[in-house]
Amino acid sequence: MAHTFTVTFDGFPEPVRVPSGSLLSDAVRLAGIELQQPCGGQGRCGRCAVLVQSGAVRRRSSLRLSAEDVAAGYALACQTVIEGDLQVHVPPQEKIERRLTTDRTAVEVSPPADYDPATVQPLRRYTLTLSPPSMDDQTDDWARLQTALRQQAGLSEVKVSLPVLRRIGQALRDGDWTVTVTLDMKTWDCPGCPAALIDIQPGVIPAGDPLWGVAIDIGTTTVTLWLVDLITGKVQAQASEYNQQINRGEDVISRIIYASKSPENGEEMQRLVLDTIHDVLKRACGRVGIQPEQVMKAVIAGNSTMMHLLLGIPAASIRLSPFVTAVNHVPTLSASEVGLGIHPNATVDCLPGVASYVGADITAGVYASGMETAQGITLFLDVGTNGETVLGTRDWLVTCACSAGPAFEGAGVRYGMRATRGAIEEVWINAETAEPTYRVIGGVKPSGICGSGLISLLAEMFMTGVIDKAGHYNTHLNTPRIREGEHGLEYVVAWADETYCGRDIAITHVDVDNLLRAKAAIYAGFTVMSESVGVPLDAVEQVLIGGSFGKYINVEKAVQIGLLPDMPWERFQFLGNTSVKGAYFALLDQRARQRIHEIAARMTYIELSADNSFYDAFMSAMFLPHTDYRRFPTIAAALEETTKNLSRPGS
Amino acid sequence: MAHTFTVTFDGFPEPVRVPSGSLLSDAVRLAGIELQQPCGGQGRCGRCAVLVQSGAVRRRSSLRLSAEDVAAGYALACQTVIEGDLQVHVPPQEKIERRLTTDRTAVEVSPPADYDPATVQPLRRYTLTLSPPSMDDQTDDWARLQTALRQQAGLSEVKVSLPVLRRIGQALRDGDWTVTVTLDMKTWDCPGCPAALIDIQPGVIPAGDPLWGVAIDIGTTTVTLWLVDLITGKVQAQASEYNQQINRGEDVISRIIYASKSPENGEEMQRLVLDTIHDVLKRACGRVGIQPEQVMKAVIAGNSTMMHLLLGIPAASIRLSPFVTAVNHVPTLSASEVGLGIHPNATVDCLPGVASYVGADITAGVYASGMETAQGITLFLDVGTNGETVLGTRDWLVTCACSAGPAFEGAGVRYGMRATRGAIEEVWINAETAEPTYRVIGGVKPSGICGSGLISLLAEMFMTGVIDKAGHYNTHLNTPRIREGEHGLEYVVAWADETYCGRDIAITHVDVDNLLRAKAAIYAGFTVMSESVGVPLDAVEQVLIGGSFGKYINVEKAVQIGLLPDMPWERFQFLGNTSVKGAYFALLDQRARQRIHEIAARMTYIELSADNSFYDAFMSAMFLPHTDYRRFPTIAAALEETTKNLSRPGS
Repeated sequence: MAHTFTVTFDGFPEPVRVPSGSLLSDAVRLAGIELQQPCGGQGRCGRCAVLVQSGAVRRRSSLRLSAEDVAAGYALACQTVIEGDLQVHVPPQEKIERRLTTDRTAVEVSPPADYDPATVQPLRRYTLTLSPPSMDDQTDDWARLQTALRQQAGLSEVKVSLPVLRRIGQALRDGDWTVTVTLDMKTWDCPGCPAALIDIQPGVIPAGDPLWGVAIDIGTTTVTLWLVDLITGKVQAQASEYNQQINRGEDVISRIIYASKSPENGEEMQRLVLDTIHDVLKRACGRVGIQPEQVMKAVIAGNSTMMHLLLGIPAASIRLSPFVTAVNHVPTLSASEVGLGIHPNATVDCLPGVASYVGADITAGVYASGMETAQGITLFLDVGTNGETVLGTRDWLVTCACSAGPAFEGAGVRYGMRATRGAIEEVWINAETAEPTYRVIGGVKPSGICGSGLISLLAEMFMTGVIDKAGHYNTHLNTPRIREGEHGLEYVVAWADETYCGRDIAITHVDVDNLLRAKAAIYAGFTVMSESVGVPLDAVEQVLIGGSFGKYINVEKAVQIGLLPDMPWERFQFLGNTSVKGAYFALLDQRARQRIHEIAARMTYIELSADNSFYDAFMSAMFLPHTDYRRFPTIAAALEETTKNLSRPGS
Repeated sequence: MAHTFTVTFDGFPEPVRVPSGSLLSDAVRLAGIELQQPCGGQGRCGRCAVLVQSGAVRRRSSLRLSAEDVAAGYALACQTVIEGDLQVHVPPQEKIERRLTTDRTAVEVSPPADYDPATVQPLRRYTLTLSPPSMDDQTDDWARLQTALRQQAGLSEVKVSLPVLRRIGQALRDGDWTVTVTLDMKTWDCPGCPAALIDIQPGVIPAGDPLWGVAIDIGTTTVTLWLVDLITGKVQAQASEYNQQINRGEDVISRIIYASKSPENGEEMQRLVLDTIHDVLKRACGRVGIQPEQVMKAVIAGNSTMMHLLLGIPAASIRLSPFVTAVNHVPTLSASEVGLGIHPNATVDCLPGVASYVGADITAGVYASGMETAQGITLFLDVGTNGETVLGTRDWLVTCACSAGPAFEGAGVRYGMRATRGAIEEVWINAETAEPTYRVIGGVKPSGICGSGLISLLAEMFMTGVIDKAGHYNTHLNTPRIREGEHGLEYVVAWADETYCGRDIAITHVDVDNLLRAKAAIYAGFTVMSESVGVPLDAVEQVLIGGSFGKYINVEKAVQIGLLPDMPWERFQFLGNTSVKGAYFALLDQRARQRIHEIAARMTYIELSADNSFYDAFMSAMFLPHTDYRRFPTIAAALEETTKNLSRPGS
């Protein structure tokens, strides 16, 4: 017979009962306490540590906890088995403060100057006046409406779904046989297919009244939504929110692991992203004073994992060799099928992906970046966990992804964090004293270091000799900041008394190694790809950087660490969220939708893990900036200059 | 402030609380007591009488209750307002006993001798073997499956729904890259449209294994289902059940009234018919040892009201001038959309209707009867509430419906009942003594008279002079059976001591009048229609009678009362349930489905209520058998013979 144990949480009056063998994280969840598990419950991130005040537990792993922490009773909730009645304290976790898009911080977006909804917009609205039925004409309502659609809108064939069919009779009578209908022509992928009747309203809707659609980008970290009036093509509201799935895994791999544990977990992940979308949807709709049900179409971009999790499609095969998705080209769906809280009959169009790690965010991004029409060679980079890269011109496109890992997003780094309030976002190190200065988001005491801060810190440490080209600490420097810590050598960026957390914020040699791996993977990715198609990197005429993280990267520092190639800065361009922008164009114009389809179809995917040269390139890039200094002439020159200065008499 | 009252039901320990102004029927429902309301709560049928033992009520109507009943405390639950705390007794209602199709009583049905599923069956099953993915071929699962469908099944375009898409990955891996897929080609109405992938199973399913489909007839009274193996075309099980909607209204008009009262009522009606279908489905599936989810397609026939109520489409316009349906040609739907508990992706194909009172049961019936290919003129009759009639040849078809009312189904007749155990189904009257003998279904004491019994009784009363040609009782006959009752003159068929209910079973002059109206409406219907197309009745070469009620009609008696035309008996044929048979053919063969579509499209509907000559024809037919004896020469001769015999000396 299975025992059950009682777990009481500090500050929560009701204890919970769990069967023996349960994990502490099960009990936390049962108690309804929110606890982030950025690594998806793999015991790797150390974020779910809780304090066991009394009672018996068995720790499977205490990775990332110090010996003192364990002695004090800290345990990783996801790795600790309950073996008796417990009293537990859950410490507050990092609070996410918003540094996300609102209308005030939104980018200015304009529809194409020649936007003509009558020719390119697949959503159409018609006001129809029908002859009422009589004893001489007992035609049924639906056939009567079809006749009007044929005669007044020129539509010979129209499909209808059951929910709309149920409403036709009442709408016709309420409108005294005048109704306004909304149709989705769906012509881009099926020119001969019938249009779909998605809404019917009694009476007349003035032709200029907005017709609403949304473009959505589901990022691993952030969900962004643009609310668009399809009549004018204008973006009327923008909203972003952290993807609520974050608490179940910081990167896509962790999320796949979490979602694949049980059908319930998969459903939970689907619900979490839908909840996030509904949050931003409500906020955007609130700003223009409409109800979400008035939105008649959604175009969605996002990486392949996000797309699978949104649709409740098992994603396990994405992370297992040979790394295939269940689907790249998702058929058009209805909002009610997807569970998306816009008009239930609205079409939900998920943009196509190319491979497990090159998703619709990239195909949409390539379209939005304009590279697919450029004559010269373009390198398109998404500097994130998956390091998606596209190289090409209007004539050809190749793409690859490298598992850079989430180090630049703050995970896998001891004091790494997302780019929110309290994050160190830029660091400068005095070359003579090795003393740092730093800038913190929000101007408060620091809690950790975000991606741009890590790039900056790594570059400064390297350029000032705190670390050498292999990432090893220089223990000969006369500074207390380089020291032997719990996890080996580390550099202290902020002393405990300066910090919010009251502990020293340091970067360890393990962190440096993780960052080197991440940048090496990305750099190796695009170099191997460019070599495999015979295009030398210096033939690249422009480097376009997508993704919202990209916006905050300092090109100089990124080149110094060898993350970005060494080329004139004017060739770099930061495009921001190209994924939502691509979705927006696809929402406006069926030709854009068709182009994104073609981009996905014609992009050649290169699997780096199958490429023998990738490992060599990766190992060569594991140095700062690279084993081959000739690839980074500017950095080589700068280092020489620094060395000269430092060797100057009197210093 | 609204008062609430307490209602206690005899034999139910828990009283219920209802707000003042509630009807007794509300309280009955709240208490969870099943109480039939055949007229839909209009206070017309008198079936929902309950005994108010104590407490204050206000009767809006006591129609069909005798003065004694009212004095004793009886009240119509649907017409009585609760005005105080009550003690109520609900008397047991007529119990329905089954005289419905089971496999033992089922008709023998065979698929067409040349049935070839490979050419005419739209449902197809294929076993596909895919090349597994590898690092050299990372095609996504769905694209990989599409390639196999193209190469191994010759299907260049296939649609997939989200629920199937979710299952593809697992099925492919469970089957080690061999799967069996089921597709619906849907070719009959959309030759260029892609096939729909409706199921995927890992591994091989032997080609001869059954592929299941169901043909369903939703009758106002009875729901019939045939479970068919689409590989052999054979009907493997048959089941019927009373439509559970009956308790909310005996005829379509009552049901529309009930369903239109509130959205909840509409949903209840939908649920009731779905519950009924699920009952028969479960029973049929149980007989062959399969789960309902293994059924991959449903074709449904039924009158227009039944179809609307099944689909949750408002039916109010059907009963209001100018009597139009919301939809005659329902688009194909999925089982999950309809809420039908077969395979959720199975196609549900609702056959097309022609008008409010000529539904898919008639179009299916016309196909099944074969009249649409007959060279000679055929009259197809459904002797029911709506009296649907079709006249035509393979070259033309006209149809009409007359609101005959449910008298022949036992409603609107004081001791009328359905053809179940205890119903008098045949009556003979001694012409000299006016004494009746009768046969009761089940050989038990009678409880009432069913449709065939009423036809028989009416004919006998007329032929023996108990009533005259106008339906008036002959008070000069020396018999105690003709007497002045509570509702005027009546003829006692069974004395109280012979009956199950312990009361005299009699037929009143009001009942006779209702029956005359019903038969006059039907007769007038087909005569007016035949005249309007210039075809005299004696040009009709065959009279086909559909509907399960038709099976029990005695032609001789039906002709004697002038319900059926006077013609040689060999021209009459009883076809049984032609509606389910038509659905069965449509399920087997897409050409049959196409023909039913064409039948619906080419059938000319004649609205009798718009035809001036109908009223005259109806009034002329309000006599037995008709004002114009020349139309019934056989009956005229028989009457003459009878009169002669009765006038014989010594009688």
